[in-house]
Amino acid sequence: MKKILIFLGCPESPIQTPLALYLSHKLRGKNYRVTVTANPAALRLLEVADPARSYLDKTSDLDSTLNGLSKGEYDLLFGFIHNDAALSYFITFKSILEIPSIAIIFGRDAEILNMLEREVEENTDSYIVSVRAHHNPNPLKVRIDKLLEELED
Amino acid sequence: MKKILIFLGCPESPIQTPLALYLSHKLRGKNYRVTVTANPAALRLLEVADPARSYLDKTSDLDSTLNGLSKGEYDLLFGFIHNDAALSYFITFKSILEIPSIAIIFGRDAEILNMLEREVEENTDSYIVSVRAHHNPNPLKVRIDKLLEELED
Repeated sequence: MKKILIFLGCPESPIQTPLALYLSHKLRGKNYRVTVTANPAALRLLEVADPARSYLDKTSDLDSTLNGLSKGEYDLLFGFIHNDAALSYFITFKSILEIPSIAIIFGRDAEILNMLEREVEENTDSYIVSVRAHHNPNPLKVRIDKLLEELED
Repeated sequence: MKKILIFLGCPESPIQTPLALYLSHKLRGKNYRVTVTANPAALRLLEVADPARSYLDKTSDLDSTLNGLSKGEYDLLFGFIHNDAALSYFITFKSILEIPSIAIIFGRDAEILNMLEREVEENTDSYIVSVRAHHNPNPLKVRIDKLLEELED
């Protein structure tokens, strides 16, 4: 069973928690083993939103996950990136794991989106999904659905 | 079976969707019939976060729910209030329904919280839960748990 790591950024965007639960649910439906890693506030949001653990599989603290990480420990990396801090974490995860990765870039500011895209392109070979979105999860959900269709089981 | 209406404000706060799913789940566990009403963006966030409908029961569009609303149609009203617009909607729902109500007031700005509390107090006889919270859902979750314990089945 393939292992997927989903990394989340800071929790200020209202669409991140819903989309992370959605992605985790869909990936589990494809029989992947899913770990979500994020800072404590972002993890608490996930856990409150999914009280019966219908959608989450494993969750783990961001910094301790990073400290204990080794090359190839997962098969695929997803990152939710909406600011500089999340970008740095994503690049670090990617450089340690050395596995295929998907960068989900989102936010309300087109200039910041462009900067984040450029940085991901220059520093990694990630597949990039980039959408201008802050309150409405649907544009990003549609792109994630498309991506999941292409993902081999 | 008692019917509960949960009203949500605009979706900019990252804690609103997780806490609304949590509250809906807990109330359904107590055998209440739960309807969540909110604007389209806030409803989409709920629906993306709960793709298998593990936590939501009925959802309904805010303005059409308000247009068709009549006195006593529900037994209990919950409102998530973090700004002036949500406050106005809550007071309107309360004044049409004329049922017991619980105002869940939250946000990062203490002055706005105080203003919202005062307005709810002056305009309704609601039970008030008010917590300074923006990224971390736990302080509000703890208060909601306490409230649910006191709620008669």
